[in-house]
Amino acid sequence: MTFSPPSRRPSRPVQVGAVTIGGTAPIVVQSMCSTDTRDVAATSAQIAALAEAGCELVRLAVPDRAAAAALPEILRQSPLPVVADIHFNYRLALAALEAGVHGLRLNPGNIRSADKVRQVARAAQERGVPIRVGVNAGSLPPIETPPDQPPPTVQELRAGLPDRLVEAALGHIRILQDLDFEDIVVSLKAFDVPLTVTANRLLARQVPYPLHLGITEAGLPWAGTIRSAVGLGLLLFEGLGDTIRVSLTGDPVEEVRVAYEVLRALNLRQCGPTLISCPTCGRTEVDLPALARQVEERLQGMQAPITVAVMGCVVNGPGEAREADFGIAAGRGQGAVFRHGQIVRTVPEDELLQALMEEIERG
Amino acid sequence: MTFSPPSRRPSRPVQVGAVTIGGTAPIVVQSMCSTDTRDVAATSAQIAALAEAGCELVRLAVPDRAAAAALPEILRQSPLPVVADIHFNYRLALAALEAGVHGLRLNPGNIRSADKVRQVARAAQERGVPIRVGVNAGSLPPIETPPDQPPPTVQELRAGLPDRLVEAALGHIRILQDLDFEDIVVSLKAFDVPLTVTANRLLARQVPYPLHLGITEAGLPWAGTIRSAVGLGLLLFEGLGDTIRVSLTGDPVEEVRVAYEVLRALNLRQCGPTLISCPTCGRTEVDLPALARQVEERLQGMQAPITVAVMGCVVNGPGEAREADFGIAAGRGQGAVFRHGQIVRTVPEDELLQALMEEIERG
Repeated sequence: MTFSPPSRRPSRPVQVGAVTIGGTAPIVVQSMCSTDTRDVAATSAQIAALAEAGCELVRLAVPDRAAAAALPEILRQSPLPVVADIHFNYRLALAALEAGVHGLRLNPGNIRSADKVRQVARAAQERGVPIRVGVNAGSLPPIETPPDQPPPTVQELRAGLPDRLVEAALGHIRILQDLDFEDIVVSLKAFDVPLTVTANRLLARQVPYPLHLGITEAGLPWAGTIRSAVGLGLLLFEGLGDTIRVSLTGDPVEEVRVAYEVLRALNLRQCGPTLISCPTCGRTEVDLPALARQVEERLQGMQAPITVAVMGCVVNGPGEAREADFGIAAGRGQGAVFRHGQIVRTVPEDELLQALMEEIERG
Repeated sequence: MTFSPPSRRPSRPVQVGAVTIGGTAPIVVQSMCSTDTRDVAATSAQIAALAEAGCELVRLAVPDRAAAAALPEILRQSPLPVVADIHFNYRLALAALEAGVHGLRLNPGNIRSADKVRQVARAAQERGVPIRVGVNAGSLPPIETPPDQPPPTVQELRAGLPDRLVEAALGHIRILQDLDFEDIVVSLKAFDVPLTVTANRLLARQVPYPLHLGITEAGLPWAGTIRSAVGLGLLLFEGLGDTIRVSLTGDPVEEVRVAYEVLRALNLRQCGPTLISCPTCGRTEVDLPALARQVEERLQGMQAPITVAVMGCVVNGPGEAREADFGIAAGRGQGAVFRHGQIVRTVPEDELLQALMEEIERG
C-alpha cells in the first residue's frame, strides 16, 4: 500500500525523439555516456547497456569535429534518443543537428555571435529538436564589482548564489525566446543540495519549461548516490522535475539504477518488484539478511510492480507482511507466508524462500 | 562553499546519558544492534564498531529476561548511551532501568495496566531516563468499522494512514503526559516515504517533543540507502528531526555511515573531508574514476572538514576546483592543482594524486 505521490508542477512538454519531457509525461530517466564519443563501438555498447537498464534518453559530449562525425553511426545504432552536449562551438551544434540528434544541450550565451545562435536555433526548430540550457554552480560567470565598491563577502556570495544561477539560466533562455524558440528544457545544478533546491524553486516559478534535475559532481557511487537521492528527492517531492540525471563518478548504468530507485521511493515510478526487509535486531531468530538477499536475487528480472516483505520478527513483521502483496514473517526456525494480506502457509525456515517464491509465481 | 542549512523546528530537549536529543543539539546519529542481546561479547563488539563509525546512541532489543540480565555488563562496556527496546512487558522495562539503561523505547499503550505503566514512568523519571514512543505503519491497530457501515475502501485506508499514525502516537503520549512524564521522543515510521513525511509533518505541529526519524524496513543496503536518503532528506530539509536512524538489512555500521552522508548532503553535519568528483564524459581524457577512488582512499581517516574536487574536464572542472578547498582539474595528460581558489601547480597526470595530497597536507 503506497501513499499518494506529490502533485506535479505543470510544464510545457517538449519532444526529444519519441520521448516526451514535461507536461503529464512520466519523469524521464536519462544518463550520459562516459565513453569517448569518437569511439563508435564503445559508445554504442554503453548506450545499449544504458537502454537495457531502463535509461530513456542519453547524452553524449561532442567536443570536436571527430566526435560530431561519429554521431550518424551512433544514432543509427542507438535504441534511445540522443542529446548532443555542446560548448562554445556553434558549428558542432549544426553538425550534430545535421547528423540527426534528438536534442541539444547548449547555452546560447556561450556562443558569442547573435547570428550564429540564430542559425543553431533555426536548424533545431526546423527539425523539432529541443535545446536544454543549463547552468552549473561551478561555471557561473564571475561577479563584477565596480572599482569603487568593496568585493562581496563570503556570506554575501553564498546568499546570492541561487539568484545568480537563476539569472544565468534566464539569460540563456531569453536569447532563445527572442528567436521564438520555445522548445526549452532548463537545468540548474550544484554539488550543494540546499543551493540546488533553492535555485530550482526560484526558477520553477519564472519559466514554463520542463526542469532537468541533477546534483553535479556528486562523487563516487556510494556518496554520490546518497547526495543525489537527497537532492533529487527534495525537488521531486515538491512536484518539480521532469527528467532526472544522477551523476556518479563511475559506470553510468549505475546512475540509471539509482534514478529509478529514487523515483520508486517517492512512488513516482515503479519498475519491477519492491523489496521491504527489516534491519533485524536482537529479536531476530533467522538469518534474515541472507534470506532477503536470496529473495532479491530471485525477484531480479521480474516486471510485475509487486511489493514483497521479508521480515524477521513478530513485532512489525506480520503487519508489514500483511500490507505487502507477498511476505514472510519469520520466527524461531519457521515462518508464515503471506499472500495479499492473508497467511497462506507456515513452513520451516529452510523452506521459506521456496514457499514465498511459489506464492509470488502463482501471482 | 556551502549554502545555508534549513532552519530547525524548536523542540523540548531530552537527555539520553551524555547525549542531548532536540533543542539546539546537533542531529544525533543512532543505530540498533543486530546481535542477540544475550550474547554480551557479540553485542559489545558491535557497539564498539558502531561507536568507532561515529554512532552516538545505540538501541538494543530486550525481548526477554535473559536479554535484560545481559544489560549490566553490556552497559559497563559500552562507550555509547544505550536505549532498551521493550514491547509489552513492563517487568523488562523495570529491569532495564534497574540495569542503568539511558533510554527506553516503549509504547505505554501496549502495556495494558495503568498501574504497570505508572511504575515504569516513575522509575524512568527517578533516573532521568527518557522514553521514545514510536508507531510503525506495519503495527497500526486495525480499524474497527461499526457493523452497520461498509468497511473503508483501499483509497480511504490510504488517505487515512497519516492521521492514524499520528493518533496512535498521541495516544501513547497522552498516557505519559497524564503521569506528568514529559521526557519524550516520538517516531512515526513507514516503508512508504510520502506517508512517513506526511505523518511527521502532522505530528510536528502537535507536540513539542524531539522527533526520531527513520524509514522502516527500507530493505537491503543499496535500495534501503536510497529510500532512507530520500525520506530522511525530505524531513530534515524542512527542519524536522532531532535524531535519525537509517534501517538497513545488513551491518548496522553501514547505517551510521549512510546517516552521516545524508546529514552531510544537507550541510547539517560534516565529519571529515567531502569529495566532489565529476561523472566523466566524452570530454574526459584521464582515468578520473580511478583517480577519485585513490583520492578518497587517501582522505580516509582525516578529520578536517575540507572539500576536495577531482574534476576531469575544462568545462566545469576549473570552476568546481576553484570553489573547493583543494582540487584538481585534469586535462590531456596533465592537470592543474588548486588550493583555496588559486592554481598552485600544473603537473603531469601521474603526479596529480601526489601533488594534490601534498597541498592538502600543507593545510
